[in-house]
Amino acid sequence: MDEKRLHCPALLDRVMTPEQAALLVEDGMTVAVSGFTPSGCPKMVPLALAKQAKSGQRQLKLTLLSGASTGEELDTAWAEAGILARRMPYMTSKALRTVVNRGEVAYADIHLGQMAQNARSGQYGGIDVAIIEATAVHEDGSLVPTTALGCSQTYIDLADKVIVELNLAQPMELEGFHDIFDQGDPPERRPVPLTKVGQRIGRTTLRCPVEKVAAVVIGEAKEKPRALAPEDEVSRRIAHNIVRFLEGEREAGRLSADKAPLQSGVGSVANAVLMGLRDSGFTHLQFYSEVMQDGILDLMDAGKADFASATSLSLSEEGMQRLLSRLEDYRGKLLLRDSEISNSGEVIRRLGVIAMNTAVEADIYGNVNSSQMNGTTVYNGIGGSGDYARNSSISIFMTNSVAKNGAISSIVPMVTHVDHTEHDVDVLVTEQGFADLRGLSPKERAVKIIETCAHPDYRPQLRAYFEAACAACHDAQTPHLLDRCFSFHQRLRATGTMLEKENELC
Amino acid sequence: MDEKRLHCPALLDRVMTPEQAALLVEDGMTVAVSGFTPSGCPKMVPLALAKQAKSGQRQLKLTLLSGASTGEELDTAWAEAGILARRMPYMTSKALRTVVNRGEVAYADIHLGQMAQNARSGQYGGIDVAIIEATAVHEDGSLVPTTALGCSQTYIDLADKVIVELNLAQPMELEGFHDIFDQGDPPERRPVPLTKVGQRIGRTTLRCPVEKVAAVVIGEAKEKPRALAPEDEVSRRIAHNIVRFLEGEREAGRLSADKAPLQSGVGSVANAVLMGLRDSGFTHLQFYSEVMQDGILDLMDAGKADFASATSLSLSEEGMQRLLSRLEDYRGKLLLRDSEISNSGEVIRRLGVIAMNTAVEADIYGNVNSSQMNGTTVYNGIGGSGDYARNSSISIFMTNSVAKNGAISSIVPMVTHVDHTEHDVDVLVTEQGFADLRGLSPKERAVKIIETCAHPDYRPQLRAYFEAACAACHDAQTPHLLDRCFSFHQRLRATGTMLEKENELC
Repeated sequence: MDEKRLHCPALLDRVMTPEQAALLVEDGMTVAVSGFTPSGCPKMVPLALAKQAKSGQRQLKLTLLSGASTGEELDTAWAEAGILARRMPYMTSKALRTVVNRGEVAYADIHLGQMAQNARSGQYGGIDVAIIEATAVHEDGSLVPTTALGCSQTYIDLADKVIVELNLAQPMELEGFHDIFDQGDPPERRPVPLTKVGQRIGRTTLRCPVEKVAAVVIGEAKEKPRALAPEDEVSRRIAHNIVRFLEGEREAGRLSADKAPLQSGVGSVANAVLMGLRDSGFTHLQFYSEVMQDGILDLMDAGKADFASATSLSLSEEGMQRLLSRLEDYRGKLLLRDSEISNSGEVIRRLGVIAMNTAVEADIYGNVNSSQMNGTTVYNGIGGSGDYARNSSISIFMTNSVAKNGAISSIVPMVTHVDHTEHDVDVLVTEQGFADLRGLSPKERAVKIIETCAHPDYRPQLRAYFEAACAACHDAQTPHLLDRCFSFHQRLRATGTMLEKENELC
Repeated sequence: MDEKRLHCPALLDRVMTPEQAALLVEDGMTVAVSGFTPSGCPKMVPLALAKQAKSGQRQLKLTLLSGASTGEELDTAWAEAGILARRMPYMTSKALRTVVNRGEVAYADIHLGQMAQNARSGQYGGIDVAIIEATAVHEDGSLVPTTALGCSQTYIDLADKVIVELNLAQPMELEGFHDIFDQGDPPERRPVPLTKVGQRIGRTTLRCPVEKVAAVVIGEAKEKPRALAPEDEVSRRIAHNIVRFLEGEREAGRLSADKAPLQSGVGSVANAVLMGLRDSGFTHLQFYSEVMQDGILDLMDAGKADFASATSLSLSEEGMQRLLSRLEDYRGKLLLRDSEISNSGEVIRRLGVIAMNTAVEADIYGNVNSSQMNGTTVYNGIGGSGDYARNSSISIFMTNSVAKNGAISSIVPMVTHVDHTEHDVDVLVTEQGFADLRGLSPKERAVKIIETCAHPDYRPQLRAYFEAACAACHDAQTPHLLDRCFSFHQRLRATGTMLEKENELC
């Protein structure tokens, strides 16, 4: 099997076990990894490293750079082994979140589209070791990537040493689905020549100098498929409202999903939106996203979608099987790009991408919190939402109007943390309706958001806050009561619900 | 004089007085104007319109779109005449600010680099009348712009009718200093081909179909020059800290002002930075900005700066005289572009622009408020700061550490309004020092900001807040006390100063 995958003779004597390769990573080092979401991340060496640390065999504190979140073998295993000192640019691991929110790991939450250039600028220092997952190594040492790209090429370029994880469980048939482009750095930088979602602008393999490769680890490490997000009624209603908005834009003769590509994430709402689009009048849909989930294959199978560009395949087991079993049907319809291209502000703006991102909470003026619970505890991070929201032609944010059985309103007087400012939120959607905020003043937005997006149970107390703030501020641009703007959050803490009792002042 | 300036025979019979032209603007209309800052804005027709309304001759409520802020003849005169119903994307007029903050005018504060595309998308409805200042009209009807471009070409393209203000007080010698480029709209859009600050990519005149021109008004309307911002010691110290930071970047071998263009605004600090650069070791400086002020001419005269690209000449009377008297010295060193190009995220990122913007207040975690006093009262707006901050290679924000003789700390526990999130602020600078925040976790940023940027008088109470928040939140990612995060602002309101008395809890 090895010789089918490892075609570079110079590397044959650098084949070693994960445990041996893990010893190349030393205390205090900065490690960077391939992939984006659990897809395409190395698994064998990270796990071996975590075991060495957990068993007490080694004392390590590491900085970890990635494309986005990683698989359990990295963030979770490393957090549990206590070997992370610093982490960027994103995470979704519960174990890591826990230690970050105990102050044990320094976590910097960075726009994913800016990570590669930031790393190349030298602002994070050097990279000691890059661990890169591949399905094959070509004769010249170039690597065939697996299910995601992320910042792989940049990390290889910057690293002193490269460890290649030749993962036999990743399908070799993925070769040809990647498009790797060297954007270069300022001040000598050319335009990204991408003008169509499906356009190829780069190479299919990762350039990797043979002399940098310190280890090749060969093995089978199954990638944990993403569970299919369950559909639920609330998600379906949010999706319905988004499709309604998009249909309205088309009817008004403005740019809509019939002409502009969509950004679509993962999760139950994103899934429901894809389902909603399947049942809509839109055809020839195109996607320009970070991640690609099963629903996009569904749309292609239904003849509704023409192309999807992303940096990561985030498919369920069934989705991956479908892709592989009908590979030739999908070839020419899917491309995986570097995350600095999938999330490139330049390209997103040029193409007029319609962005759909999720809010944790939004306030009555349209500011969005995507990351911090109660303003203090980070959940995941902003990920690529800012790359898309800022540069899109229409920036849509969506959220359930309430959470925890109604104890939490997602629409609050003031968000406790801002990830997307009022300037970057065009349309707010909940299962209650959508608020088109474009060109409106903050006070106009407040009325629209309260009356169309907030849950009816919370409308009275949101109105009461807004009216009291307007009165106290004499209708200033953004009326607020600084001593009551977080009253919803404080009530939740004190009473277990944001909902006020009848006759209580907000 | 007229025939020297108005070369289009078909337009000779459309010459009329400002008062006659003003009658073309009817109640309920959307009016869009040329220019950016007071520079390049129409003056005669707007003033006539304001007079007609103020005298009670006409009842008008208008929507006004511009490139950025405008001159007194527009925002101030229209606000005082009570004819503004809706205003975007920016303002700096005290009179307008007053009525906006009384809720009498709906004001939407929009990224200046996105305004033209937003308008073309149709999201603000149509444009009834565009009023465009010109120094001359060519035979084919094309217009020679004056001291700024802003969104002039887009507004002409979208307007049903165009009123040309042929301003004889604007120098004809400005012809050739403009570069007007049609970016096009998604989904059919090409890359902006600009790869060098000084590169020409477009035309020197505004395309304007003769049949659209409903009026030509000819007259002399002197543009009020910008007063030279006074230099003061605090500005000089901020500038010194910025130059120190930039020198450090160069010494570290990273992108700095020797290779990347600078964004530089207006005002005393921006001026001081230009002075500081003149006395630094940097040579061959380049500027990629919205506005161009006197200090840039000084740097050119000192042989320190090679080129400046902007959308607006924002010179003092002396500066304008200097430019005109030595025009050939500056030709080939200055270009005025559409604001959608000067503020283009695509170009700013490609060139690696180093952004320098002003904060009203910043919090200990690096979030910046640029627009709202106490979170409620809008001062000016974000202007182009977001276009640059988000897309720059290094995003610097600067502010005095204190205001109002020390009664206000510009560094607070939590900003009352966020215009630039923690994700978009790389370096924070005050006269006390600079904090390089890149790659740091929020808690690490807090220590750096408190210890290097905050005024020493405020450090104890900022430390006390941070420590109390860390304790209460068990060192979560972004420690905050929701009941005390605005205590500085509340104390200011209650006692006239943010400074707490000794032994008082923060």
